[in-house]
Amino acid sequence: MSFSKKVIKVGLLGMGTVGRGVYRLLTENADHIESRVGAKVDIKKILVKDINKDRGISIDPNLLTTDAGDILNDKDIDIVVEVIGGTGVAVDYVRRALKNGQSVVTANKDMMALYSKELFELAASNNCNILFGASVAGAVPIIRTLRKSLASDKVQSIYGIINGTTNYILTKMTEEGADFNEMLKEAQAKGYAEADPTADVEGHDAARKIAILASVAFNTYVTLDDVYVEGITKISIDDINYVSELGYVIKLLGIAKIKDEGIEVKVHPTLIPKSHLLASVGGVFNAVFVHGSATGEMMFYGQGAGELPTATAVVADIMDIAVDILRNVPKIVGYSGYTDKPTLPISESENRFYVKILIEDRPGVLASIAMVFGNEGISLGTVIQQDAKKPSDDTTELIFITHATKEKNLQNVLCCIKDLSGVREVKSVIRVEG
Amino acid sequence: MSFSKKVIKVGLLGMGTVGRGVYRLLTENADHIESRVGAKVDIKKILVKDINKDRGISIDPNLLTTDAGDILNDKDIDIVVEVIGGTGVAVDYVRRALKNGQSVVTANKDMMALYSKELFELAASNNCNILFGASVAGAVPIIRTLRKSLASDKVQSIYGIINGTTNYILTKMTEEGADFNEMLKEAQAKGYAEADPTADVEGHDAARKIAILASVAFNTYVTLDDVYVEGITKISIDDINYVSELGYVIKLLGIAKIKDEGIEVKVHPTLIPKSHLLASVGGVFNAVFVHGSATGEMMFYGQGAGELPTATAVVADIMDIAVDILRNVPKIVGYSGYTDKPTLPISESENRFYVKILIEDRPGVLASIAMVFGNEGISLGTVIQQDAKKPSDDTTELIFITHATKEKNLQNVLCCIKDLSGVREVKSVIRVEG
Repeated sequence: MSFSKKVIKVGLLGMGTVGRGVYRLLTENADHIESRVGAKVDIKKILVKDINKDRGISIDPNLLTTDAGDILNDKDIDIVVEVIGGTGVAVDYVRRALKNGQSVVTANKDMMALYSKELFELAASNNCNILFGASVAGAVPIIRTLRKSLASDKVQSIYGIINGTTNYILTKMTEEGADFNEMLKEAQAKGYAEADPTADVEGHDAARKIAILASVAFNTYVTLDDVYVEGITKISIDDINYVSELGYVIKLLGIAKIKDEGIEVKVHPTLIPKSHLLASVGGVFNAVFVHGSATGEMMFYGQGAGELPTATAVVADIMDIAVDILRNVPKIVGYSGYTDKPTLPISESENRFYVKILIEDRPGVLASIAMVFGNEGISLGTVIQQDAKKPSDDTTELIFITHATKEKNLQNVLCCIKDLSGVREVKSVIRVEG
Repeated sequence: MSFSKKVIKVGLLGMGTVGRGVYRLLTENADHIESRVGAKVDIKKILVKDINKDRGISIDPNLLTTDAGDILNDKDIDIVVEVIGGTGVAVDYVRRALKNGQSVVTANKDMMALYSKELFELAASNNCNILFGASVAGAVPIIRTLRKSLASDKVQSIYGIINGTTNYILTKMTEEGADFNEMLKEAQAKGYAEADPTADVEGHDAARKIAILASVAFNTYVTLDDVYVEGITKISIDDINYVSELGYVIKLLGIAKIKDEGIEVKVHPTLIPKSHLLASVGGVFNAVFVHGSATGEMMFYGQGAGELPTATAVVADIMDIAVDILRNVPKIVGYSGYTDKPTLPISESENRFYVKILIEDRPGVLASIAMVFGNEGISLGTVIQQDAKKPSDDTTELIFITHATKEKNLQNVLCCIKDLSGVREVKSVIRVEG
């Protein structure tokens, strides 16, 4: 190693779950990290709200401060680590750090899903760097893989399970036959879901992550506003059981695809075949599938959250920047050649669809529904009506799985079907992948 | 981008399957690669055996040479890409390149499993670099992930399916109930197995890869000679069917674990539960599991071979080195802090074991066998004897799955059992993971 003996100084903004993990890794694995980086990586200051709070680990009180300026105005601090989260003060702190020429490592998906363009440009113009590997899928190294390992390839699509809370709930619903609300309560009791679970169960958390993944995969800026979002609150145990008989499971997927006309980016509950590797990803784990023109199909699986798994991703980014600083590399942002590609509206998105319709049990209803699909040019792959599952004497349920069709064509069909004589209700519409 | 406008010049040693893939990616994705690297990456010369051979793609004949000196003596060539393979001339060429200060990218597992220490030291002392991401698991970015993403963590174990040929054969045996020789012939007909399949089916190919993975995961030098190897030629369709009923599949795994006393590194057929993600990895795909102290469980899955998948790994390494050259980084080897850790003999390795024994069907035989296990301190998890599966009127088969025990204890047991009255043959011994 021909490095100078400089010590790399880190300022930590925030000391919640991830912050504590970063502190623990940098201290407990200090020798290991020093041998790999070629220099010590030391925490110089930690911004907290309350210096006297019990954090369950022993920290030198001289490290703690309640004044962000102690980090952001200290030219001796090379790397600012932002683990506060959210789009409030965190964004201002990151802007200030970059303007000062301090490189930033962040785990903040809310910020990166909205402000990445501004922050990359700020980093570039101030000759420093911003890395955000921990913002998606915790320990799963999907960001670095897209940026580095697949750099020579053209990614066609990327999709996966990127929210552990909803995956836990859907896995338990599938395994135990319990309903959504019951499993949500269990997830809350176990600390897998927050008191206000909206961001998770309505798909907003996954939407932020797929926006970030799509940006890196397709070298463009996709923001949260570009993402079509549908959560899992309407998924019934009936649907889960029904699709299971057809050989599918239901997962909440973030999905991004690139087409000639633009980028499709969305989050919604999705039927996937039981034989698909993603179907076996249970509990709070995350897994991301990537399809590249040259590489073909790949999958990356691991813990999507948690103190130490997320902290490993943060510290890996710290180490990357530390090595660059030691090598006196002009600090550059690792994102080059971003172009602004259009995002497509959900109406142009193409999928197979699972549709469940409650009808009156009398002749001609199936025929009239099938005709509506036919008139819209949608072919049907599977049609099922089971006497054994009649909800009442005078009604029955029809299940259709369509071949691939544009969302707008399906919406036309649903519109017409609702008004048909003999149709009581379109009970479920769920997209199918794989 | 503040890069100078230098063009990065590449010399390609070899133009087989992987070489053609590298040529195609560097030419077909040239714009894409230039925008990400910040400079053109051009092939200046290609070493081939026969200039006039039809390679199925059009190549400027001026690029081709039969004289390695045209690449190794050309100071204008920044990066030498070695895709000849094997431990013959390839190793000499790589040594010459590094001595000249040319950085090397290689896909050569045979070389890296034997000479990594020499080559790293040669690169370090000549101020250049050697990267070898394509030497293991094709497109699966496991080497970069271990070096970068998991750099702050301590890897406890790494194991996986790292030979596509044997995975294809075992998958087909399982799905179709066909025997080993039949499926080997099919794999040969489809081009998945070579005319001489020894390296694949006897586990030597996987052994090279697990040696490389163990070295990177544990920051030490593990060579092919350190690896215990057992292939799949003795796996019978009977075993596959039997373990399937018990909830297992058989996979050929490369396995490396670190313990206080040293490193365990081996390749052998392994029972894994059907619920394990690796059990769903079929055909020629590769998948590697990593268990880190902080990250927990992770899996990486993708195509382990093939022209373009392997080439993406080669070109990713070329791009990494190209960016370093453009940033005027003192060319350093990315392997620091390697320490020489001892490898443990297989007798010290700890596993659960599946054991099938053919015995005479008479009272007392099971008791005497069970006593031998007990005397050696091995507890039994599963014991099965099925009348319905008797191979003949006067014999029957006993299946044991032990709890974890050291290999040497099991060998003691097997020794004693062979000589017991009523025991005809120990028919199978297969290790169990997961």
